[in-house]
Amino acid sequence: MTTDDAPPSPAPRNEAPSTGRELVPALESILGQQFRVLDDGFVRVVDYMGSDAAVVQAARVSYGAGTRKVREDRGLIRYLMRHHHTTPFEMCEIKFHVRVPMDTWRQWIRHRTANVNEYSTRYSVAIDAAQCTAPTEWRLQSQGNRQGSGAFLLAEAGAILSTQESQLQAQTRSVYEARLAAGVAREQARKDLPLSTYTEAYWKIDLHNLLHFLELRLDSRAQLEIRSYAKVIGEEIVGRWCPTVWEAFRDYTQRALTFSGLEAEIATSIVASDSQKALELGLAAGMVKSEGDHLLVTREGLEFEAKLMQLGMRAPWK
Amino acid sequence: MTTDDAPPSPAPRNEAPSTGRELVPALESILGQQFRVLDDGFVRVVDYMGSDAAVVQAARVSYGAGTRKVREDRGLIRYLMRHHHTTPFEMCEIKFHVRVPMDTWRQWIRHRTANVNEYSTRYSVAIDAAQCTAPTEWRLQSQGNRQGSGAFLLAEAGAILSTQESQLQAQTRSVYEARLAAGVAREQARKDLPLSTYTEAYWKIDLHNLLHFLELRLDSRAQLEIRSYAKVIGEEIVGRWCPTVWEAFRDYTQRALTFSGLEAEIATSIVASDSQKALELGLAAGMVKSEGDHLLVTREGLEFEAKLMQLGMRAPWK
Amino acid sequence: MTTDDAPPSPAPRNEAPSTGRELVPALESILGQQFRVLDDGFVRVVDYMGSDAAVVQAARVSYGAGTRKVREDRGLIRYLMRHHHTTPFEMCEIKFHVRVPMDTWRQWIRHRTANVNEYSTRYSVAIDAAQCTAPTEWRLQSQGNRQGSGAFLLAEAGAILSTQESQLQAQTRSVYEARLAAGVAREQARKDLPLSTYTEAYWKIDLHNLLHFLELRLDSRAQLEIRSYAKVIGEEIVGRWCPTVWEAFRDYTQRALTFSGLEAEIATSIVASDSQKALELGLAAGMVKSEGDHLLVTREGLEFEAKLMQLGMRAPWK
Amino acid sequence: MTTDDAPPSPAPRNEAPSTGRELVPALESILGQQFRVLDDGFVRVVDYMGSDAAVVQAARVSYGAGTRKVREDRGLIRYLMRHHHTTPFEMCEIKFHVRVPMDTWRQWIRHRTANVNEYSTRYSVAIDAAQCTAPTEWRLQSQGNRQGSGAFLLAEAGAILSTQESQLQAQTRSVYEARLAAGVAREQARKDLPLSTYTEAYWKIDLHNLLHFLELRLDSRAQLEIRSYAKVIGEEIVGRWCPTVWEAFRDYTQRALTFSGLEAEIATSIVASDSQKALELGLAAGMVKSEGDHLLVTREGLEFEAKLMQLGMRAPWK
Repeated sequence: MTTDDAPPSPAPRNEAPSTGRELVPALESILGQQFRVLDDGFVRVVDYMGSDAAVVQAARVSYGAGTRKVREDRGLIRYLMRHHHTTPFEMCEIKFHVRVPMDTWRQWIRHRTANVNEYSTRYSVAIDAAQCTAPTEWRLQSQGNRQGSGAFLLAEAGAILSTQESQLQAQTRSVYEARLAAGVAREQARKDLPLSTYTEAYWKIDLHNLLHFLELRLDSRAQLEIRSYAKVIGEEIVGRWCPTVWEAFRDYTQRALTFSGLEAEIATSIVASDSQKALELGLAAGMVKSEGDHLLVTREGLEFEAKLMQLGMRAPWK
Repeated sequence: MTTDDAPPSPAPRNEAPSTGRELVPALESILGQQFRVLDDGFVRVVDYMGSDAAVVQAARVSYGAGTRKVREDRGLIRYLMRHHHTTPFEMCEIKFHVRVPMDTWRQWIRHRTANVNEYSTRYSVAIDAAQCTAPTEWRLQSQGNRQGSGAFLLAEAGAILSTQESQLQAQTRSVYEARLAAGVAREQARKDLPLSTYTEAYWKIDLHNLLHFLELRLDSRAQLEIRSYAKVIGEEIVGRWCPTVWEAFRDYTQRALTFSGLEAEIATSIVASDSQKALELGLAAGMVKSEGDHLLVTREGLEFEAKLMQLGMRAPWK
Repeated sequence: MTTDDAPPSPAPRNEAPSTGRELVPALESILGQQFRVLDDGFVRVVDYMGSDAAVVQAARVSYGAGTRKVREDRGLIRYLMRHHHTTPFEMCEIKFHVRVPMDTWRQWIRHRTANVNEYSTRYSVAIDAAQCTAPTEWRLQSQGNRQGSGAFLLAEAGAILSTQESQLQAQTRSVYEARLAAGVAREQARKDLPLSTYTEAYWKIDLHNLLHFLELRLDSRAQLEIRSYAKVIGEEIVGRWCPTVWEAFRDYTQRALTFSGLEAEIATSIVASDSQKALELGLAAGMVKSEGDHLLVTREGLEFEAKLMQLGMRAPWK
Repeated sequence: MTTDDAPPSPAPRNEAPSTGRELVPALESILGQQFRVLDDGFVRVVDYMGSDAAVVQAARVSYGAGTRKVREDRGLIRYLMRHHHTTPFEMCEIKFHVRVPMDTWRQWIRHRTANVNEYSTRYSVAIDAAQCTAPTEWRLQSQGNRQGSGAFLLAEAGAILSTQESQLQAQTRSVYEARLAAGVAREQARKDLPLSTYTEAYWKIDLHNLLHFLELRLDSRAQLEIRSYAKVIGEEIVGRWCPTVWEAFRDYTQRALTFSGLEAEIATSIVASDSQKALELGLAAGMVKSEGDHLLVTREGLEFEAKLMQLGMRAPWK
């Protein structure tokens, strides 16, 4: 399925059929519309079920008639999110059509609680497109974080890599096509295609599991490529579909600050201006270690420092 | 949530809002409508996503443009069903509101791949209704099948049991209410409510997993109560929603006839009129055992006999 | 399966067979041993796979040889827990045999990512035991929390309820047995058994999902009965099986303190002694509302107060 | 994790520690042992839980004491398999360490009900091995089956492809290493690695889901590469671990023969020698179509012919 060959877009507005189902006008307005991601990828909404109201409706099954008017919807949604009452969020479902490099798809597919139909390169010739990197987009290996990337390579050095990339992709494609021309089965001919090759899929997931995907893939430690997809899905789509849930999600998940039990104890000592006790607790917890005449802060200790700093507090060992 | 207090029915037809989503008129026409099951239960469709066409669309992602017109939809759906290509059926989703005795719900909830919000008897007073059995509806323990039931008790004996049932239910309810009146927490007061007490829930599931539920719960070995719900969901709802899938499901699952490898070998000997070899195979497979001067047929052998009989064939040991 | 009839206990230590699998002596020592819960329930470990070391081993698949010695195990496990890297915890699996009132089982079974085989009251006569409540164990409905319970009923009033409970349970059992005597099928005869009836099951789950179960069921808002089971599973079993994971779980999950983004902003203002801004943020966030000449604190605001208090801080509106 | 660097093999037999858990000597004897697959892949068992006996034990929870001795284990396991009673098979669990080309892993990972930790090419340099194809192993595109492969390319033509493959793999590796040398982040440098690159993973799954994996991946329509892994897992491992389950699985799943309801009706007419009715049913079912003066057999019809032939019967239109 190439982009041109994608399932038909929804009927134009003026002849759209009527439905008795719940409907979200803000999402209807972008149904079928492609949001571009990376150099040649996209995300578009194919179908959906539910809304902020469906979450509330499901939660209220548990409250019965008597508590019906007690809370407003926003307060209820925030309460559910705060206390990890996840089942009402499962009552909403959304179906996407996505176009993604296979390397990104390898991460994406690890989210198991979703329904997937992917373009098959056994049945059909592989999509003739691979993700290309512009000279200014090559990222340096992060030193602090073994799995991450940091600053960008200089454009000059990047240009060399981009040229090499382009040649390599052309060559792998030509080997692929030579195999097909020789009669080799598609399922085998594809074996040396690069991970950068684009694939397409239908991806259907409930709102609770989608938020979990977004929590992990919007994180600063997630790889830039999948983070770009997550950003579009969150901001352009979930924000339109279930705005109250989206607001609560950002507040309680993305922007939240969590102290472990040990950290909370240390913070309590800091608030009480008992820096001696705070330091002792930090040493006992193994966040800092005494090495000769100085203190060595562990990774856990460094992460705690950053959290304290966010509140305008200072670690006792600083 | 009592029935009266249920989520509002959809808007009347003439003012239904328009949507760009796929739409199934036959299902829209019964949206929100209660189908009665048992003495006081029901099933109704709250929302849905997809249709026969969505299954086909998802399957065709795998085929790409080139094979687009090669098969017709019905043939493709039958092919998918026959070869257990289940993911395209997961692209359809449906949400029900059901009212079910807790005893039946205990079986229902074992289907794990579904989303559920159940009425909470911690938050609210338990629904004041229990499933009642008419004098002619008491079923005798099956002799052949340890888990099943067979013929009905005579109405006269049944009447005694029904009266007793009615008294017991009244009494358990009055104990429950006495506890509540004494200030006992709802979560504890409910502990001796009978399993026959009705509960309600939203239940959302994809079409593949719904068909699996129906396969197990429409089976003649399933308990009558849950079978009654499965019958309504299958015939009244899935049949309207995805008629082609429903037809294929009945043909390939409900009405299918499966021979094990051993059974197929024996059947081949029967077709070849080699009853000697057929009998030997049956003995070797342990379907029949020689006991003195007669043959003892095992449960597996009896089930095989029934399958042969359906094709008009006869087991070699008969 | 009655308790007496339970699967055989493991062989005595001195003749236990040897294995090449990973082995946890502290857990081996309680294998098969019943931990009593409630008046007649229990939990016992039937089998297990993995340990703290298996979590570390799985996590290190991702790090490769180069980082092998970089972190110690405890630090790695804490890192995984802190950053929600859940898959290494899925590499451990445990199988329990439990005996639980059906009412508690109704909550238990909602944890879907687990494997279950429950005692069938279609095949066999229901277990002749129901959970009994001592006169001092009747709990009053919580006023602050619609779903909870609080103080206990006076023993005198409780004694009346306990007597009534006992009579009701005897009577429901006798009706059940009368039905069986009349030949009614077990699957139907059971319909009015009380929810307090004990059931038994094998329950198998991976460590990640078990911790999620414990997180929800050890919470103070969980019902006392299931909390009692969770306490035994956590403290007696997981604590022996994977002590490092258990320590990290308690620190990062049970004892953790989470501020939403809004709450973190208010806390920052409090730390900076800017109580005016803190109050304004609280009003803007809807945590407090101005009602005439006083402030009304919402539920969200009250919960935030409690978190601040834990750190020795005070809400700006107090 | 390279092969050399893999988790340590189990302790030698003579010093293996003792356990109270269930133990399968035939599986213990190959614990940790690598079974080679493809040119450089492998499968090995890291840990396991349960056995044939655990399946029986779990099934008997449902039968209670009364029926304890009624059936033998083999008969019970066959009954469970025949009637799709799947939960007892979920009581066994196994953990593998596998080494697989990424292209094969893309198919493998689609089995969602499993636990996975894969070697990370974000943290570590990618494994320096790609699957190579010998000159005689290039498969031709199947004509009958759009997704399959058939005969082999001639060795002479294959030799050209193999040389080209080898050069391409060397080149993609050198581009990868040049990127790393230039300081590019591992997560980005890997983007053009070929799908043939080997990866490693821990893969843990319960027996029911493993059998489902085997059913799909042992099928003749599965791709040769993943079929090779499935063959080793089934024959070398499951056959040792749970021999009775493995026998039943092969008989009821792999070697089974299923007629749809329509096919069973036609077969019944054939048995009754009513070829006129058989033909009419085939036409009505759309298995054959009348085209001018000859009959056109559809794909469904051809598959039915093959099933009939297996039993020594002939389709009415032949």
